[in-house]
Formats: sequence, C-alpha cells, structure tokens
Amino acid sequence: MGIRIVVIGGVAAGPKAAARARRLDPDAEITIVEKDELLSYAGCGLPYYISGLVQDRRQLMTTPIGVLRDPKFFAQVKDIRVLNRTKAVSIDREVKEVVVESVDSGEVQRLPYDKLILATGADPVEPPIPGKDLQNVWRLKQVEDADRFRAKLQQPVCPSVVIIGGGLIGMEMTEAVVECKGAVTVVEMLPHVLPMIDADMASLVEKHMRDVGVTVVTGARVERMEGNENAEAVRVVTTKGAFDAGLVLLSVGVRPNVSLARDAGLLIGASGGIHVNEYMQTTDRDIYAAGDCAEKSCSIRGTECFLPLGSVANKEGRVAGSNAVGHIERFPGVLGSTALKVFDWNVGRAGLSVEQARDLGIPVISATVAAPDRPHYYPGNKPIILKLVAEKSNRRLIGIQGVGPGDVMKRVDVAITAMAARMTVDDVANLDLAYAPPYSEAMDVLIHGANVLRNKLDGLMKGITSLELQSMRTRGEDIFLLDVRSPDEHQMGAIPGSTLIPLGALRSRAGEIPRDRRVVAYCKTSLRAWEGVRILAGQGIDNVEILDGGFLAWPYETVHGV
Amino acid sequence: MGIRIVVIGGVAAGPKAAARARRLDPDAEITIVEKDELLSYAGCGLPYYISGLVQDRRQLMTTPIGVLRDPKFFAQVKDIRVLNRTKAVSIDREVKEVVVESVDSGEVQRLPYDKLILATGADPVEPPIPGKDLQNVWRLKQVEDADRFRAKLQQPVCPSVVIIGGGLIGMEMTEAVVECKGAVTVVEMLPHVLPMIDADMASLVEKHMRDVGVTVVTGARVERMEGNENAEAVRVVTTKGAFDAGLVLLSVGVRPNVSLARDAGLLIGASGGIHVNEYMQTTDRDIYAAGDCAEKSCSIRGTECFLPLGSVANKEGRVAGSNAVGHIERFPGVLGSTALKVFDWNVGRAGLSVEQARDLGIPVISATVAAPDRPHYYPGNKPIILKLVAEKSNRRLIGIQGVGPGDVMKRVDVAITAMAARMTVDDVANLDLAYAPPYSEAMDVLIHGANVLRNKLDGLMKGITSLELQSMRTRGEDIFLLDVRSPDEHQMGAIPGSTLIPLGALRSRAGEIPRDRRVVAYCKTSLRAWEGVRILAGQGIDNVEILDGGFLAWPYETVHGV
Repeated sequence: MGIRIVVIGGVAAGPKAAARARRLDPDAEITIVEKDELLSYAGCGLPYYISGLVQDRRQLMTTPIGVLRDPKFFAQVKDIRVLNRTKAVSIDREVKEVVVESVDSGEVQRLPYDKLILATGADPVEPPIPGKDLQNVWRLKQVEDADRFRAKLQQPVCPSVVIIGGGLIGMEMTEAVVECKGAVTVVEMLPHVLPMIDADMASLVEKHMRDVGVTVVTGARVERMEGNENAEAVRVVTTKGAFDAGLVLLSVGVRPNVSLARDAGLLIGASGGIHVNEYMQTTDRDIYAAGDCAEKSCSIRGTECFLPLGSVANKEGRVAGSNAVGHIERFPGVLGSTALKVFDWNVGRAGLSVEQARDLGIPVISATVAAPDRPHYYPGNKPIILKLVAEKSNRRLIGIQGVGPGDVMKRVDVAITAMAARMTVDDVANLDLAYAPPYSEAMDVLIHGANVLRNKLDGLMKGITSLELQSMRTRGEDIFLLDVRSPDEHQMGAIPGSTLIPLGALRSRAGEIPRDRRVVAYCKTSLRAWEGVRILAGQGIDNVEILDGGFLAWPYETVHGV
Repeated sequence: MGIRIVVIGGVAAGPKAAARARRLDPDAEITIVEKDELLSYAGCGLPYYISGLVQDRRQLMTTPIGVLRDPKFFAQVKDIRVLNRTKAVSIDREVKEVVVESVDSGEVQRLPYDKLILATGADPVEPPIPGKDLQNVWRLKQVEDADRFRAKLQQPVCPSVVIIGGGLIGMEMTEAVVECKGAVTVVEMLPHVLPMIDADMASLVEKHMRDVGVTVVTGARVERMEGNENAEAVRVVTTKGAFDAGLVLLSVGVRPNVSLARDAGLLIGASGGIHVNEYMQTTDRDIYAAGDCAEKSCSIRGTECFLPLGSVANKEGRVAGSNAVGHIERFPGVLGSTALKVFDWNVGRAGLSVEQARDLGIPVISATVAAPDRPHYYPGNKPIILKLVAEKSNRRLIGIQGVGPGDVMKRVDVAITAMAARMTVDDVANLDLAYAPPYSEAMDVLIHGANVLRNKLDGLMKGITSLELQSMRTRGEDIFLLDVRSPDEHQMGAIPGSTLIPLGALRSRAGEIPRDRRVVAYCKTSLRAWEGVRILAGQGIDNVEILDGGFLAWPYETVHGV
C-alpha cells in the first residue's frame, strides 16, 4: 500500500500539491477534499469573466485544451480521488485522520492520512458596517459569485456600483464594471488606493481612473449602507459624502481560513496564517499548509506576512506535494510581488515601498523615473513610470513600483529577480538586458532608474517626489520651480508657478536662479532637469533638486497656455 | 584649467562617455572627434527607417523632444566641443596628443589630452567573394547607407533582394524588405540562421520566415556574384543554387575598428577588440576604450569575446566617462544578450546555447518548453517557446533562448538577471514573479521551464530535442512515437508515424506501449506527455522520453487527417 495523502482544498495549492505528489509517487493514495462543487478553477480570472472578456465560465475550469478538471478528470488522468461538496470538519492528529462531512447527505467519514496538506484558502473580510447584509451587498469569492455579478452587470442598463476597498480585487472589479458600461465609485479608507504602493505612485493610478470616469474617494470610512423597503442597499454613506448604489461590492481584503488548523492545535502566526517552515510544514511534521491559508516569509522584511496570490499558492503547493512524498524541496519566501491591470495601465510592485520601509525603520533612497518603454522613434512606444527603492546602508535594491501604459511588468519582473539575488543598484545598472528597438531603449528605463539611484547615493543628485513638492506648495512654502523644457512644452502644460528657462539657455541664464531659495527643476522626465542641475552646479549653484519622474509623473494640478 | 578629455567616435559609446564625464566634472574640457557628419544617432534604428516604420531619419538623431544632436547642441547644452567630419589619424602616447585631420580641408591638428577615450566602433566584414564590388552590392553601416536602401526598396516595385548572412542585421533587413513588399532570399553559410541560438530553435525561426514567404538557404557558401554590363549584380551563385538579385546586402558580420589603437601600440585581444580591464582601461592607463571597438568579458564563458551591441556600448561609455574624471566605476561583463524581432515573432537569447556549451566542453542539460504567455482563458494570449540550459555540475542556469509571437523578452530579461546573479534553476523556479492574468500564468512559462530542468537534473525525466528526434527519424531508427493528445488534435496535425493514445486512456492502455523500443511521448507542449511518462513509470514502463517543447516546438514535417 502506498503512502496516504489527504489534501484539504481543491482550488489552487491543493490540486497542485496533489498532482506533484502523484507525479513523484505513482503508488501514493491521494484524496482531495473540497467543500464546493467546482475545483481547480482560475479564481484570478473571475473579474475577467464578469466583464465578459472571458466569455465562458467553463474556460476558467478546463485544461488549455478544454477538458473539464472535474472529479472524473482527476480520477482518470491523475489517479487522484476527489471528494467535492465535502467539508473537512476536524483533524484528529492522534490517530492521523480527517473527519469530513458530505454537504448534501450530511454523511460523516474519517479519512486516514500519512501526510495531510492544508490548502483551505482565504475568505473575504467582513467589516462591521451597518447594512452589510442588505441583499445587493456582495462579495467576490467563488464562481457562483461571479455568475451573479455578471448577470447583474450585463443587464441592458448596468447598475451604478459602489466598491468598498481600493485593493487588488476592488480595482479589477472597477475595470469590469466600466467594461459593462456601469458607473463606479471606489471608496478607500486609507489615504490612497493600492496601499502596497506609495502615495505618489497611487495618485497617478487614481488620476488615470478619474480620467476614464471612475469616482475615487480616498481617506473615507464607510459609516453605513442605507437600504430600501426590499432590503436592497441604495446609498453608501461615508465620512466624505454619500453615494447612490445599485450594487455594492465589499472587498476590504481577505483573511486566511485557519479554523481547522487552529482547532487541531497547529500554530497560527502573527500574520494570521498557518505557521509553516521553509518545507511548508506546520508545527505538526506530518501536516503541510500551502497557498492563501499559509503564512509567508517575506524575504526583504525578514518577517512573516500574509499575501494571498495564485502564483505563490502554486509554487507552495508544488513544494508541499514534493515534501509529502519525501522529495525534499524548499520554498525561499516571497517579495510581495503584485501585478494589476487598471484599464490600459499596467501596475506592478515588489519588495518594500518607501512607506513600508519608513514603517520598518529602514533608511532608504528612492528614485522615480519616467521614460518610454521603447525608443522615442519606434512607433507604439508608451511611457512607464518606475519608482526604485534602495537601502542606504548597502545600496541594495529593495523595492520596485511601476505604473503606466507601457511595458511595466518586464521591468518589475527583472527587478524582482534582482531583489531575490540581493543585487545592489550598481549591479542592476550594469545588467546586460536584451536590447533591440522593438523592445527597449539602449539604456532601458530600469537601468536608467538604477543609475539615478546611484547618482543619489553618490551625493550627486537630490530629488523630491511629486507628493513632497505638492505638500510644500499646499503649505505655501517658498520654492523656485524651474521648468527647463522648451517653450512649446511649457505652453502645453506646466506646474503652476514654474519659471521657464529652456535647458539650452540655462548656461547663459544661470544668473536668474535664486541662490537663497529652494530650487526644484523639472522637465518631461527629469533627464534634462538632471543636466540642468549639473550645469548649475558647474557654476557654483548647488541648491537645486530635481522633481523625481518629472512632469510625466506629476499627478496634481497643471496650468496651460502660460 | 580642467582635465582635457578627447573622445574618438561620436555614435554611441563616445557621446555617452563625454556626457557622463561632463555631468561629473563641469570643468573638464571635452572634445568629441567624429569622422562622419552625423553623430549620436540610433544606428540600431536604421532597419526600421529603411522599412518606413520610422518615417523620418531625423527621428534617429534627435532627442526625444526633437532637438537635433548636432555640434551646436553638444556645445550649448553639454558644453562639449564636437569636431565632426574629422578623422583621427594617430595617437602620440608620449606627448599625449591625438593627431586629427579635417575630411573637408585636409587640415591637420594635434589635440592634447589628459584622458583619451576610444569609441571607434566596428565596420562590416568584407568577405573575399568575387563580385562583391558590383554596384548594387551594399552594406549597412551609416545613415547614408540606409538612405540608399530606403530609396531603392521604396520604389513602386521593390527589387528582389539577396541577403548574404543570417545574423542580426541580415534578419532585421529581411523584415524591412518584406515590409516594402520585396522578395528576399537569405543565404547563410552555417547550418542555420542566427548562430547564437541552437539549431532546433533556429529551425522554428526559419519556419516562421518561410511561412511569410522568405526563401531561407542555409549551409550554403556564396561562390560569386554575377554582374551585368552595367556592373550590377544580377545573380548570387551559391553552393546550393543561384538566386536572382536586384540588390544584394552583404552582412556577414562586423569587425572592431582597432587600427588606431593597434598603431599606437595598445594590446588587441584574441577576439579582435581592444583589450580593456573592468574599468574600460586599455593597456595605457590614460586611454579607455568603450563600445564596439572594445573587447568584452563574457561572464559565463569567463573568456573575452566580441559583441557589438548598442546597449553594451552605452553602459561601457558611461563607465569610461566616469573613470576618466576619477569617479571609479566597474563594468562587470556581458552575457551575450540579444533581442530580435522577426516579423511577428520575438527572438531573444543570452548566456550559452547548448551548441556553445558543447564547444566549450561544459556538460549541460537543456529543457525546451512551450506555453502561452498568459492564461489560456485570457484573450490575446500567444505562445512562446523557451529553451533553458543548466550546467550539470552545479544546477546553474547558464543559457536562455526564446522564440515565438508571445512576450518572449520579459522571460529572457528575467533569465538574464538570474544568470548575472548565478542563480540555480531551483532559485529560478521559486522566483516570486508578479502575476495577474493579463500578464502571465500563475506558474509562468519560465518557472515551468526551470521546473522541467529540475525534473531532468533530478533524473525524473528524460527529454529529446526536436532536432535529435528528426535526426533519428531521418536515419530510420526504430522509435515508438506516442501522441497523448486528443483525437481532434491528432487529426489536425501530428508527427508522421505517431500512435495516438490520449492521456485519459493511457492508464488502461499502457499495455500497448512497447518495452523493447525507444519511446518518445509528446502532446501540444509536452506537459501531458510528462504526465504520461509518470503514469507509465508507475506501471513499470520506464523507457519513455518526452519530446522537448512538444508539437508546438516541432519545426519539421507533419501529417494531417490520420
């Protein structure tokens, strides 16, 4: 008789672990227990099914050639037994059995195991907001939820939707509603959407959302949802006003499902997930946990965290499945890597943001650079804005954020790899990335960003973020704002109160720069501003900073025709 | 008086070095000497200007906002003196002067230097082929060459073009000619085009080229070009037949311009480039070399090589410019990273190919994987085929090749970063790449490829490349070819002589697999074939290999409707 493996959870990490164990051990007896009907479906694809981009829900639960991943498929192709519509009730660690109960018949049985793999996932957080149980206040978790959303949003007149929570799901659903021609209001309690990126970068995303017609309300707490006589929500009342709603999505985050593990006496980490070691083992060596229910080790912070992502779940599932059958593998931890499409913008991040580094007390320097993703002469090039974060003490790259219509994700994935290897910004600046005009500039924007960081770390350049500049302006501080672009560019749009001295004239007009005020120079991308800083430094004027990322990365008010 | 810096060469590395030196040292006296009229232009963009994709040649020589990078621009904005149409004749290292001569007036002057930077570039190799001096046998080097090509190709009837050389320039020009609706024949002396990738991967590219109508002739030496009474080539005669030509492009490679350096007694490396250390210093500590004229240090081989690429030239120029003014920087070497668009396919590579590793005597294992670049359910996903190479002794990733219509370049750049960091395939398999359905599968194809390599290194899987299988078939060897796809897929196209046993039926029909023959299993991507191998292994049948990359990566003949 082979080793008996029971897997609890049939969406991502669970089936992956089971399939890996099967490939390594043809004799193992493998059982997956899943409380719902469907298993091994692409949960991350749900917003795209709701929007109609993915036409058929079946596509989310089939193999690439269209075979449904149902219990029959698992039995026939993988020799894995699936008990779906079956709830795991408890774990008896003494006798090594899982007690399960059929959702339909209520029948209870005990499944003996040699190795148990917990892949119980995560569920949406339920905030204690009055009105949250009104009929049209929904959550997005399962395929059935997606079916409901899709039916409602694809009506001839799409209802106006209020989305509570500006995180990943909230943002993806915003796009889905707009695709369905619905009006959307996003309400976020924090000062900006997407808390995993810095305020200046998030402001650019918010601006893009407003540009396509989304109402974005930040720093607003939802006080209550008001319903009508049919117990349907009609208004969402927040600390920053009330918003009409035909449908409300509650997406304020998810929480790992750990009750089974906790009841069995397994250690639950401070992050709320099941504590695991690098072999994905819980505090019981015969019980593994993988996917959203398991705590992650964050490589850069050096602490545990909770990050529910399908990519991580699959890798952890593979490691757990390997180890369960004695093929030893380790999982090295995560970087908090995140990707998100926001209409025609791409948003990615990994490592630490400046805000996160500040909270952890890590001294950092950041650089924001804006540039086309391909040479300016190559048709179809699109801008991207990258923010790189380096640790001051050792020059290591420890954070990346990217937004914009251009190919952000290539640069983010390269930075992720560099961070996994603990590269310094000097290493990154000399990466021999593959170059041809259809793909990048000769000096790729990521290389350029690393060089800006090197210049800052070497004390050659001082920069100020758009948010810092805007705060100074709001506080009425005395700043000399120097626009070194051409008169045409200045005319088309500039930061209010700027003085125009085109770069080509700066050597001869350096005398116009005040030496007793704080001077901030900018151009479209701050490349010319950097030239300008050096020109002025050559004339002994060293009180000039650049605006990080330049006018391309400026999300606040502008003036035209001055 | 500031330090005197003379830079010889005004295209890529030279202007970069000069600009960097200027930014670091406002007092330096910097002079660029350039023999041609134009400087600081995007040489890599010439094929796209010829095809008409880039409309105006001016775009290749302006800043992103359209300012021409002419001597006036360099003087005004960068305070750099440019002597264009000026040839460097010799270097007098004793007195530290460069002798230069005006192309127009013949006037000679001596430029004293404290630091000299050589950025003399590379020129096309002139093979000793009879007829190479006929009037319409052209090379592509400068903007003026591109003007000529463009004028000729954009005539109402584009002439038929024979391109001699299937390297990067040859391939880019192939596309340019097809864009102009011309007929093209590419003649390559080696067994396949793109010698920097392996034969199996190159065969896929050749197949794609033939699919769009290009005639590809490999393993053919050009014997002569035959001219008409006007001394125009009309036929290119090769060892594999003769081809009519209205225009011939000679592009059999480039060679570094080192005569100035050699005449000055500087060491020229075995690769033919000027020998430099990691500070880009030549054997004279006051003379630097950067860009195509300088020898590169190849990180993985650990030897010197010659690789003319604009991306490397820019980075080296920056390092040389920094060091020339005393701001010490190092250049860590290159990986042979290359990117190329071939019609609607993307081609990238870095590190060592299997062929290169074999020539160097390094034992390697490779894996070829084919998969969509995004989830199969996400509209617009496109296939990519990756070949990963790992060193057997230490499991390090030492080579990547990618081809296909999907987003190849992101994966190649990630692999480049991993190779720069000397990561093992185990490290690569657990990279926390940013995931969302618009960008990748939860298990990205690169992660998948690394896992296949791990399985092979762990002895769990044996693979055979398309080329090896095709050679066995050609030699008439006895192989049992097992197609584990669905009957529909098999019907649509299969490798001749395959036996169909769909994966779902394999457990019950395992008895049909011969145990005394070599068995090769395949499916679309070889993912199901791998499942099949493990199913059969579970039944004691262990003589089954998979076809690396599956049917998607099979470039040879197929049968339909069997």
